[in-house]
Amino acid sequence: MSIPLAEVFPSVVNRRPIGVFDSGIGGLTVAAALREMLPAEDIFYIGDTARVPYGGKSASTIERYSLEISGMLLAEGAKMIVVACNTASALALPRLEELLRVPVIGVIQPGAEAAVAATRNGHVGVIATRATIQSKAYERVIQLLSPEVRVSAQACPLLVPLIEEGWLEDPVTELVIGRYLDAMVAEGIDTLVLGCTHYPLLRKVLGDYVGHEIALVDSARNCALKVDSVLKAEGISASDTHVGSLRIALTDPSSAFLRVAEEALGIHVGEVQLRAVQMINP
Amino acid sequence: MSIPLAEVFPSVVNRRPIGVFDSGIGGLTVAAALREMLPAEDIFYIGDTARVPYGGKSASTIERYSLEISGMLLAEGAKMIVVACNTASALALPRLEELLRVPVIGVIQPGAEAAVAATRNGHVGVIATRATIQSKAYERVIQLLSPEVRVSAQACPLLVPLIEEGWLEDPVTELVIGRYLDAMVAEGIDTLVLGCTHYPLLRKVLGDYVGHEIALVDSARNCALKVDSVLKAEGISASDTHVGSLRIALTDPSSAFLRVAEEALGIHVGEVQLRAVQMINP
Repeated sequence: MSIPLAEVFPSVVNRRPIGVFDSGIGGLTVAAALREMLPAEDIFYIGDTARVPYGGKSASTIERYSLEISGMLLAEGAKMIVVACNTASALALPRLEELLRVPVIGVIQPGAEAAVAATRNGHVGVIATRATIQSKAYERVIQLLSPEVRVSAQACPLLVPLIEEGWLEDPVTELVIGRYLDAMVAEGIDTLVLGCTHYPLLRKVLGDYVGHEIALVDSARNCALKVDSVLKAEGISASDTHVGSLRIALTDPSSAFLRVAEEALGIHVGEVQLRAVQMINP
Repeated sequence: MSIPLAEVFPSVVNRRPIGVFDSGIGGLTVAAALREMLPAEDIFYIGDTARVPYGGKSASTIERYSLEISGMLLAEGAKMIVVACNTASALALPRLEELLRVPVIGVIQPGAEAAVAATRNGHVGVIATRATIQSKAYERVIQLLSPEVRVSAQACPLLVPLIEEGWLEDPVTELVIGRYLDAMVAEGIDTLVLGCTHYPLLRKVLGDYVGHEIALVDSARNCALKVDSVLKAEGISASDTHVGSLRIALTDPSSAFLRVAEEALGIHVGEVQLRAVQMINP
């Protein structure tokens, strides 16, 4: 039986930050939801921009990278790890849960729960990176939650580069979205999971394309709700009187996309730290 | 004064492979040109697919990655390093030349020479990754070769993802090409440098777009000519009677794009090895 951390060192644990990571900048959509819902919490965010993207890489590489970045967050004193990256959540979560001594929360389970709650006709579409789609992580979780729900899945490797180019509302982006979504819309989905933390930046153009009949679901808000409930269950929430902050570190300083995200998400990025990856020898 | 390697260990050096690297698979366009022009040479190719792409990352990260991969090629006995990646050639060549004890050949110089030879009106366009364009490496080399040549440059970060998706002849790709090239075509370039080793895979659609008036130039053939002349100058060419081979190693096994490249380049990829990156602590 594990003893909740807060019973051992209550005052110390509560002041520690929530560690959040993503392969790059996209996970700031989750950080923004956490800031909004849990303004008293400090957040330490690491974007692995030196090795972004994870979405086309293999399971073993994604698992190793996720462990390395989680180790860097623990070195910052993280009381919990939020895997704000669908690809890492799909492929590395079991290994992180096995090896880390703090709670680990991914974005697949919250996204799947939101989709199952939203669908009325029992047919859900999922769009994500190639690695996430190949993992079938969403199908697996949705099947466990509600075995009768049918899932149509589509890898969309061009959406992240389009978002990072800043072409958020653009005829090219519309054309690419049509190419990726036409089949699943024709098959009759009534709910679409944005299975990559970048995709909420395309919410407007995706919504215009699929129309009001299809509900768009992302993990950010549901993930923040889950974080809140785990913090409370473990008794490690920050004091209500604390004013939380968001610190951001990247493994590569290139920041072309950082300003796109800052503007689109309406969050204050402030000064960004640079951190070298601490590599685990495979 | 340095003594040519071949005078010290002639028979041993000549049997060593040419080491070729790229951030990913695109450098196989250079490997294919080397195979065609130098069929007696063994080639050992490493694609750093665990960290691809380099093109949006910072100079310091690109330099470190290039040193690490070059070190892996030297461990394979490489008698020469060919940097078959425009981004690494633009940002890391001086440091590689300083630190490595074998000849190092990049793709910028050969591409710039081809452009200066091809232009008739003295106005050259360059398309490449964001990092290559920001480095102004092509402008610098072209100015040294021929100060009166004017250069128009455009970063095209979406072209590599489009190629890796396999959309080589596609309305989306045509639309994106138009977006990137319209301005420089209107300005009157008569030569276009394909400043990324992936881009020759778009030669047909780029040629259709710019028309016959504009010459397309890539580094692959000129780079192979340069390799041949350095091998001869150093006296380290393989014996004419040897039948050369191409061995390929990747730092991540994901291979969605490998089959696209194999088909488009008409080269035999064969069995692909997997290598862990040997990291240099920054």
